[in-house]
Amino acid sequence: MSESLNIAVIPGDGIGPEVIAEAVKVLKKATEAEPVKLVLTDYKLGAEHWLRTGETLPEETLEALRSHDAILFGAVGAAPGDTRIPSGLIEREMLLKLRFALDHFVNLRPSRLYPGVPSPLAEPGDIDFIVVREGTEGPYVGNGGALRVGTEHEIATEVSVNTAHGVRRVVRDAFRRANDRPRKKVTLVHKHNVLVHAGHLWRRTVEEIATEFPEVTHDYLHIDAATIFMTTNPSRFDVIVTDNLFGDILTDQAGAITGGIGLAASGNINMDRTAPSMFEPVHGSAPDIAGQQKADPTAAILSVALLLDHVGLSKAARRVELAVETDIASRDELTDERATSEIGDAIAAALS
Amino acid sequence: MSESLNIAVIPGDGIGPEVIAEAVKVLKKATEAEPVKLVLTDYKLGAEHWLRTGETLPEETLEALRSHDAILFGAVGAAPGDTRIPSGLIEREMLLKLRFALDHFVNLRPSRLYPGVPSPLAEPGDIDFIVVREGTEGPYVGNGGALRVGTEHEIATEVSVNTAHGVRRVVRDAFRRANDRPRKKVTLVHKHNVLVHAGHLWRRTVEEIATEFPEVTHDYLHIDAATIFMTTNPSRFDVIVTDNLFGDILTDQAGAITGGIGLAASGNINMDRTAPSMFEPVHGSAPDIAGQQKADPTAAILSVALLLDHVGLSKAARRVELAVETDIASRDELTDERATSEIGDAIAAALS
Ligand SMILES: CC(C)[C@H](C(=O)O)[C@@H](O)C(=O)O
Ligand SMILES: CC(C)[C@H](C(=O)O)[C@@H](O)C(=O)O
Repeated sequence: MSESLNIAVIPGDGIGPEVIAEAVKVLKKATEAEPVKLVLTDYKLGAEHWLRTGETLPEETLEALRSHDAILFGAVGAAPGDTRIPSGLIEREMLLKLRFALDHFVNLRPSRLYPGVPSPLAEPGDIDFIVVREGTEGPYVGNGGALRVGTEHEIATEVSVNTAHGVRRVVRDAFRRANDRPRKKVTLVHKHNVLVHAGHLWRRTVEEIATEFPEVTHDYLHIDAATIFMTTNPSRFDVIVTDNLFGDILTDQAGAITGGIGLAASGNINMDRTAPSMFEPVHGSAPDIAGQQKADPTAAILSVALLLDHVGLSKAARRVELAVETDIASRDELTDERATSEIGDAIAAALS
Repeated sequence: MSESLNIAVIPGDGIGPEVIAEAVKVLKKATEAEPVKLVLTDYKLGAEHWLRTGETLPEETLEALRSHDAILFGAVGAAPGDTRIPSGLIEREMLLKLRFALDHFVNLRPSRLYPGVPSPLAEPGDIDFIVVREGTEGPYVGNGGALRVGTEHEIATEVSVNTAHGVRRVVRDAFRRANDRPRKKVTLVHKHNVLVHAGHLWRRTVEEIATEFPEVTHDYLHIDAATIFMTTNPSRFDVIVTDNLFGDILTDQAGAITGGIGLAASGNINMDRTAPSMFEPVHGSAPDIAGQQKADPTAAILSVALLLDHVGLSKAARRVELAVETDIASRDELTDERATSEIGDAIAAALS
């Protein structure tokens, strides 16, 4: 009588398989008591897979992925020095292709400074905000080109594409999330004084959607000013909504001030549920420490919490978050030399 | 028998006139003993001027500005709430127009954590780098548009334009500057795994120019990773070279970690000297504290040092920098309540 929960698992490259092993451990444990039958299907994709097969993301794999309820993703990418792999190929032809093909228009990235975690900021204050990054438009659309490449007359362009459809749905999502949070505040980050056309679309859309949420306040920051506040007063942020590129930049900075992207989780979410959403740590494949059980699986495990939320198992999601919190509170960053699997074990144990 | 040094002065809006008054004070004092006759010409431009006259940057003013040896610029921009001024108009039609018309292809922004200045970072380390930001291309070219504005089918684009000519000259400038510095290291910041065409032009150009500077090492960071290092290890940077938008973002973050953009100077430099270069504090017009003698004129005064360097008066430039350093070392940030003019006086006094 239990419904099945079909999760596609893409461990990927580098530390991806190690952190995903722990995320799966926690996912299994967290859903034990739930009325669902967890079905996990592994997909081999990434730089290693490309080297072996020449495949980035075959059509059949993409179609197969569509049949799952959600995707748990580790990390992809070759070692920086590996010249066998054209730079950025896996990122574009696989990771970004998934985000675009599955219409992951909400790239959700929560940032919280957990009690006990040292921040590189001298006075971090109370950091607890989410970034709602647009995931299917902006400068990420691959809409550029080059002329006379390699000559002194070369010209290379990159086009940021922004549509009312794309901006509206992500801004509405940000206001909805803000409405559910105690502080109920949305900050639009853009650079509308320079990027006039895109900027005005974003601003007008925020003004328009704001009327649907009378309890939510909103303000605006240029991206350059936002990086200043992220340094001097990050507790001013509640919900940030921004485009694909600005969101990429801000969420890495947000990861840094909250103790490193080893703790930063993310969801690539299709809020219309026309395709499965995908949950992944913000960090990359970190080839330098791969295979050594040195990676912190916390970001992958927190991504499981976002996944559980998305598939409607909010109680299980809260339990995972709480278990992570408990584990983090017991850590001594300076002396914590636990292996990846030991951290996973500890968080799984804290679940019950 | 002394040559004249013709400086155009654009105080601008908000705190612009206050900080420029101090910058001029220091400029006069610093050049007293130099074999030049300082000739200063004031130009009224900015938001206030636009409100009175409807002029942003008339052709005649632009032509008049061309006849000077350099431009000293304060800040422009209306109060955020002032709806009489179309948003971004002054920034684009005046500030950016000057940078583009006068071919300011090197936007030079040094970052240094002066001894005694508190950083918002817990362990800032030794921060001393320069950002060489491209100033005439990239997403700043105003090459975008919008279709079906205000409808649900609106589409807005922004085009980043990058040319071999533009990238090469700024990358070469960065390597030259690195070659003159003890650490001799260039870091290219871009996002070439996503912005493929522009990114590859930048990367290839760095590889190409690097061969001209055998003593200079170079590395590469994605913009998102750069914001992390700016937080966790800023002393890794020596010379950063990057495009117009990434440079805008990074230099505000750099200002924040070195004690606030109240100390950050910049030069908009035409290295070919086909038109005058322009020197300005990185900060804006700060309408909230304007007219109250609360602004710190240090960034404007350090911009004078960059100006003096550019016009060949390096000794005077060093004296200004040293005077600023002396003043900063004597400050107690928590109790320093000196008026703008008192700080200017103190730095001018420290010159001799
Ligand atoms: C790997 C890269 C394409 C990706 C991005 O830019 O979105 C990454 O930086 C991220 O933030 O998930
Ligand atoms: C005012 C604005 C157009 C400008 C820019 O984006 O370049 C400012 O932020 C700067 O950094 O000088």
